[in-house]
Amino acid sequence: MRSAEVIAVGSELLGSTRTDTNSLFLSERLSALGIDLRIKSVVGDERADLATVLRQALERTDVVVLTGGLGPTDDDLTRDVVSEVMELPMSEDPAIVEKIRARFERRGLTMPEVNRRQAMVPRGAIVLDNPNGTAPGLFIDHQWQGRGRRIVILLPGPPRELQPMFDGVCAGPLRERAGTERTYRTSLFITGRGESHVEQKAQPVYSRWRDRTPPIATTILAAMGQIELHLSVRDTDEARAKATLARAKEELLAVVGDDVYSTDGRVMEEILGDLLKERGYTIAAAESCTGGLFTSRLTDVPGSSTYVRASVVAYAYEDKTALLGVPTEMLNAHGAVSEPVAVAMAEGIRARTGADVTIGITGIAGPGGGTPDKPVGTVVIAAIVPGQPAYVRTYTFLGGRAMVKFQATQAAMDRVRRMLTLTQRGF
Amino acid sequence: MRSAEVIAVGSELLGSTRTDTNSLFLSERLSALGIDLRIKSVVGDERADLATVLRQALERTDVVVLTGGLGPTDDDLTRDVVSEVMELPMSEDPAIVEKIRARFERRGLTMPEVNRRQAMVPRGAIVLDNPNGTAPGLFIDHQWQGRGRRIVILLPGPPRELQPMFDGVCAGPLRERAGTERTYRTSLFITGRGESHVEQKAQPVYSRWRDRTPPIATTILAAMGQIELHLSVRDTDEARAKATLARAKEELLAVVGDDVYSTDGRVMEEILGDLLKERGYTIAAAESCTGGLFTSRLTDVPGSSTYVRASVVAYAYEDKTALLGVPTEMLNAHGAVSEPVAVAMAEGIRARTGADVTIGITGIAGPGGGTPDKPVGTVVIAAIVPGQPAYVRTYTFLGGRAMVKFQATQAAMDRVRRMLTLTQRGF
Repeated sequence: MRSAEVIAVGSELLGSTRTDTNSLFLSERLSALGIDLRIKSVVGDERADLATVLRQALERTDVVVLTGGLGPTDDDLTRDVVSEVMELPMSEDPAIVEKIRARFERRGLTMPEVNRRQAMVPRGAIVLDNPNGTAPGLFIDHQWQGRGRRIVILLPGPPRELQPMFDGVCAGPLRERAGTERTYRTSLFITGRGESHVEQKAQPVYSRWRDRTPPIATTILAAMGQIELHLSVRDTDEARAKATLARAKEELLAVVGDDVYSTDGRVMEEILGDLLKERGYTIAAAESCTGGLFTSRLTDVPGSSTYVRASVVAYAYEDKTALLGVPTEMLNAHGAVSEPVAVAMAEGIRARTGADVTIGITGIAGPGGGTPDKPVGTVVIAAIVPGQPAYVRTYTFLGGRAMVKFQATQAAMDRVRRMLTLTQRGF
Repeated sequence: MRSAEVIAVGSELLGSTRTDTNSLFLSERLSALGIDLRIKSVVGDERADLATVLRQALERTDVVVLTGGLGPTDDDLTRDVVSEVMELPMSEDPAIVEKIRARFERRGLTMPEVNRRQAMVPRGAIVLDNPNGTAPGLFIDHQWQGRGRRIVILLPGPPRELQPMFDGVCAGPLRERAGTERTYRTSLFITGRGESHVEQKAQPVYSRWRDRTPPIATTILAAMGQIELHLSVRDTDEARAKATLARAKEELLAVVGDDVYSTDGRVMEEILGDLLKERGYTIAAAESCTGGLFTSRLTDVPGSSTYVRASVVAYAYEDKTALLGVPTEMLNAHGAVSEPVAVAMAEGIRARTGADVTIGITGIAGPGGGTPDKPVGTVVIAAIVPGQPAYVRTYTFLGGRAMVKFQATQAAMDRVRRMLTLTQRGF
């Protein structure tokens, strides 16, 4: 079991702007078992197309993961097509019918008859329980047309259903069938720097690693609000692989420095949350152009209610005055997007909540509202932490409205992170 | 020219969480020419894999669009593989070399020799100018191995380079070769109902459309916080196609009813924003468990600053009292997650901002904090709109923290939508 393909099923995915988080997840989990994801396909709800793509994948790959198309409706074709292509007839599994029925009943509902489709199981398949939805998954290990042994895994499309189910597969039936070599990965997340800056610092370091035995593969990726360096190494020995990656990370840290905010996969809102918890600090925000996104991101972290106190989103001048105590004269003299106002917002939310750490963010997210002096993307961020003078800076972010909002929240969180770690290394 | 496939080339795309905007763009432009995007593949920088995927695409599809892999480096394989699979030898185009050289010189740089690779052109290919980068595109119209005529289009991966180049292709060589039939699409978005409920209502209606001439294709999709019905029809006559889709939509509306919140692709925050603008109302929110997400979603809409006043996120009891005036006795008597508190939050933000429409949201997003009485996912939503009694209801949402937060904001927005359209049809 060396190579894998992913086939995502659903016409809506062909023209979707939604982020595909499944591929990254599957590729990481597969590679942890030493299996490389080589090709990913997206196929609409057309029986013939799905059958062709599945046949071609089975011709060249050991493991095929199909996501989506397991729902109860007519255009959910994945089960049928797998049964046909693998030549494994299906029958209804009464235990699955009962589980789906019980799931509906817990919510006071009657199971619609169409959901019975989800209980059809190809001969010999292992049924994968779905704790977060009605569609069970399937794991098939079967010889295919004289080409050899093939693993075919069917999973529902929603990440929250797919992820725990695939973790179960990786811990169970797939692990038993995988080889002894594994891929080990680690990453560094950097914010406040561009891709070419990071590349210039990092390339002389990681280019030397290609000729090591085993080689360390490095990928540099520009994501929203951050640059990511992903390192991976294949090895049969876990301790040795981890030591290799730890040394490699230290070498990169020596050149990239405090711009690295995470070395263990934690995202910014988790890093900041953990810093606040460690220090026993609470946080509150006064937001204008970010419209609540700063606080919403912080509260995406489970347990954040212990350190997130409150926030005020104040768009209009009068709300900045009424809710945050920003003086009207200051607003008139400097404009809402100005350093004195950002500081007054941070001070205002601090006075009203008593939080230890407070933030003020005001800016122009666009597409309207820009001026020659303050173009779209101008954002002023103020931060107050205990025992330090108030910080304030005017940033200019590129991109559309969503990008400006996100980058502003990222910069604000990173600023607090840097202030809280001032006397020690930056992570 | 009826069907198309897209092949995106690049190892970094296999494990990326970046949003793929190229597919949506290409699928919309192709469908405007009556060409259906049927399959999308992502292939790493492996020569053999790319050759296989391209051959298979050519076997079954009229138009193949390849994106990426046109750069100057060793792992940019697209040109080479296309030349090999299509059996069209390449030669260097001196005009392209000159353009690339000039582009470097304008920036005061010397063209590196590796960039000559980008000037290699397969026999008979039309060169597509790239105003925003060095890699030119290629348009190939050629018979392929007795299977018939095939169009192969090579474009660079970055959207700002790809988009103007493909628009040129669609206005020129591809349009000349496309038929007169086009695909027209529309959609209905539904919230507050499950997929099987919508399917049971809608299926008897749309199943009849398959036998119409021309048939209407229907896809049902469960997205976060909503169910989507996507309809499409192929026709040579635009007015007739649009009338067909309009009638079909009316038939669905008659059975699905007020649960449909959008019939024109606008998402909930846009629908609500437009309703508020029409009525000249402002909105403010008091959020607890949603942590600012309600207001952040509203402010994702350009121009929302005209109707979004302010919001307060208050997690702790004392902040609900200090910032929103929720009486301490009420919090102690009923708990923070209770209908009286949700109403008091909506009233509190109304008193402090004077906004016309206000919302109070309080609940348990999880994973901690649940009790037997109020399990994780319990959310109370209160809404106040002018001239109506305050609304309050306790919901139970399934899913993880992010899902509960999103569904709560979706339900709150939908509630306001319904209240604002009480005396008319629901959209």
